[in-house]
Amino acid sequence: MSQLAATDINEANQKAVEAILSAQAVLVDLRPAGKAIPGFKPDLITYAGPPISWERMCFVQKRAIINLAIHEGLADTPEKADKLISRGEITIAPNHQYNNVSGMCGATSASLPVLVFEDRLHERVAYTWLQTDLTSFGDKYERGVKEIEFIQEILAPVMQATIREAGGINVKELLARGLQMGDELHGSFDASRGIFLNWIMPYMLRTDFPKDILAQVGDYFLSNQGRWSVGNLMMGGCKVMMDAARDIRLSTVITTMASNGVEFGIRVSGLGDKWFTGPAGAIVGRVFPGYQASDSAPCIGDSPISETRGLGGTVLSASPSHAKFMGVNFSDAVAHTKSMYEVSIAEDPTYRIPYLDFRGTPVGLDLNKIIKTGITPKINAAMAHKEGGHPMIGAGVAAVPFEAFKAALEAFVQEYV
Amino acid sequence: MSQLAATDINEANQKAVEAILSAQAVLVDLRPAGKAIPGFKPDLITYAGPPISWERMCFVQKRAIINLAIHEGLADTPEKADKLISRGEITIAPNHQYNNVSGMCGATSASLPVLVFEDRLHERVAYTWLQTDLTSFGDKYERGVKEIEFIQEILAPVMQATIREAGGINVKELLARGLQMGDELHGSFDASRGIFLNWIMPYMLRTDFPKDILAQVGDYFLSNQGRWSVGNLMMGGCKVMMDAARDIRLSTVITTMASNGVEFGIRVSGLGDKWFTGPAGAIVGRVFPGYQASDSAPCIGDSPISETRGLGGTVLSASPSHAKFMGVNFSDAVAHTKSMYEVSIAEDPTYRIPYLDFRGTPVGLDLNKIIKTGITPKINAAMAHKEGGHPMIGAGVAAVPFEAFKAALEAFVQEYV
Repeated sequence: MSQLAATDINEANQKAVEAILSAQAVLVDLRPAGKAIPGFKPDLITYAGPPISWERMCFVQKRAIINLAIHEGLADTPEKADKLISRGEITIAPNHQYNNVSGMCGATSASLPVLVFEDRLHERVAYTWLQTDLTSFGDKYERGVKEIEFIQEILAPVMQATIREAGGINVKELLARGLQMGDELHGSFDASRGIFLNWIMPYMLRTDFPKDILAQVGDYFLSNQGRWSVGNLMMGGCKVMMDAARDIRLSTVITTMASNGVEFGIRVSGLGDKWFTGPAGAIVGRVFPGYQASDSAPCIGDSPISETRGLGGTVLSASPSHAKFMGVNFSDAVAHTKSMYEVSIAEDPTYRIPYLDFRGTPVGLDLNKIIKTGITPKINAAMAHKEGGHPMIGAGVAAVPFEAFKAALEAFVQEYV
Repeated sequence: MSQLAATDINEANQKAVEAILSAQAVLVDLRPAGKAIPGFKPDLITYAGPPISWERMCFVQKRAIINLAIHEGLADTPEKADKLISRGEITIAPNHQYNNVSGMCGATSASLPVLVFEDRLHERVAYTWLQTDLTSFGDKYERGVKEIEFIQEILAPVMQATIREAGGINVKELLARGLQMGDELHGSFDASRGIFLNWIMPYMLRTDFPKDILAQVGDYFLSNQGRWSVGNLMMGGCKVMMDAARDIRLSTVITTMASNGVEFGIRVSGLGDKWFTGPAGAIVGRVFPGYQASDSAPCIGDSPISETRGLGGTVLSASPSHAKFMGVNFSDAVAHTKSMYEVSIAEDPTYRIPYLDFRGTPVGLDLNKIIKTGITPKINAAMAHKEGGHPMIGAGVAAVPFEAFKAALEAFVQEYV
């Protein structure tokens, strides 16, 4: 690239990073996907990661989609659902195409309640549904549906009323508080869940719901499934903040990272909605008792939006506990954070890492710097059982394929040079 | 001391530390001090720190006691209260004499609701009242009474029912969780407050209280005053755990540290209930806007039970955020924790410091080691305005006077050698 182009790219990247840093992330509502998300039709099921054909999709993600097709009444058996999807009578599409993000298999359908996040400064809206590991890991149909019914009938109405009563929840600040307390904000959210409950309790108690309903919401937040609550807030919050940097001409800032379990995809600000992919990486870490590493599907989900925003694996140095949980040496976590500064545009004044003397988190992953240095992000991923039928089976770290960045650079050169 | 005595002392100290480590701390109830605490009479007001005469007591602690005397109906003016206390018609005594602990001025009277902590293994019970900085810093009478009335009429009944509904709250574990999340457990409790709310919410919602009452409790936990909630749990929990090590013949383990703002006192396991004192130290740290360092009373309160248990200032290395808040260099915090291992008997397998590679906290402060090395604990203290009439005015670090340890050693020699 010419000298002039490099200056222009730098300017574009500064603009992108300023947009990310100034972006707001306010949880403003909760409604069924079919009502909240423009164009989200009753026969649509969306999924995590870059676009992939039904044939090439991995088993567990297919299973999650089929489960939802049955739950939505689009088919009455798995076989029929499979056939209808193959024929295109049930439409499937990536979540990101609808400004939606969701963890793991990420399957989202019209009746599922999605959290609505706004960045009023940049006029962006993003969504994520109230998934838990019972719904998003392609678990058994009965378990998944039982969980979905609880979410639809109890949790979502209460949360909707609570969010409205509160007049919105500042997710950007919530995540900043959690990061100060050892949540790395991809796999660990215990501190931010507590802060969230502290924030919402007075509003929840002023909704019209009877106490026995609210008590069930209390049970949920205390349960293993409740651990996913702030994970969902993280995804929607990071998505709406990263969207502020979309479509900036000449910017090499990475705006999306996501995986469908077959391909890991990235998108780049200056290259619009095009995806660039490489093979989804294996997850190396801690496998829960009763499972083995070979049971795990590769890295899957839209949750790498955390690392796209410079959180999660990028700031594992903020969470010695989560590093220990995954079996990562803390010194390696610190070294990785430091390496991420080399491939990022700026440091974030809102998100700071206590263990690194409150240095701001690396923000604005730069495609050029990644290509030049060969340094790539690492994703703190949860493990889905590759055959489905189970909740989360472990947690660890997955590499991001360098191929995706190379493909993006080629496209960038083609577009601009 | 003879060689034989040294071996005996070591054995006694091992016994003391094993008692501390095995001690439980379960919050089991909440009742008015006059009903919960044996011998706590209606004309008794107890206070923080070692025994001190009314004449020598510092102004702000006197003020807090006088406020309570009026609130209890023992006197109708400050002047009359002063006179009745001087004459002994209102009795004053240290909290510790009643197995009670309370922060700052620590004034406790019969109608105030105290949390009840049990260690069933060692058959110990401890108490602490639901104070906030509006009651415990000798604030204006009207503000203090308004706060006390809210606590007595709204907060305490709800908390009592919640604790009973839950069948007890494991405070030992709660504190361990908080420590993992950056609470150093004397001045910072934001993470453990969230965990606590997460734990109690389902039970609170199953009490008989109407939602509008529970909503006020939600407001309290979200307010600045709610920040004191887990501070109180810490005090009662640490007190009941440290009491497991009381009265072990020949043990030089320190079982109590507390200050009345004039004298800082310690007690030693092998020396029973005797106090050994030195001048209360100044608090060096962050003064809130509108105040200056010279406004602060010296270190005051029973809350150094935190450092007695090896938490608080001893593990400031677990809380970069709180170190920063108080203006302490993090490297100094780490150095202090490391120095505390030199004067402690053991390392705690329950309480671990993430930043020190999960090393267990130093536990069992040893009088002998303190005397030999000259290394003394540091207290993370809140600042009370020396003239009263204000809430908390700052936070910082206070030294523990070496005189107290010297006096204790002399008594130990006299007792045993």
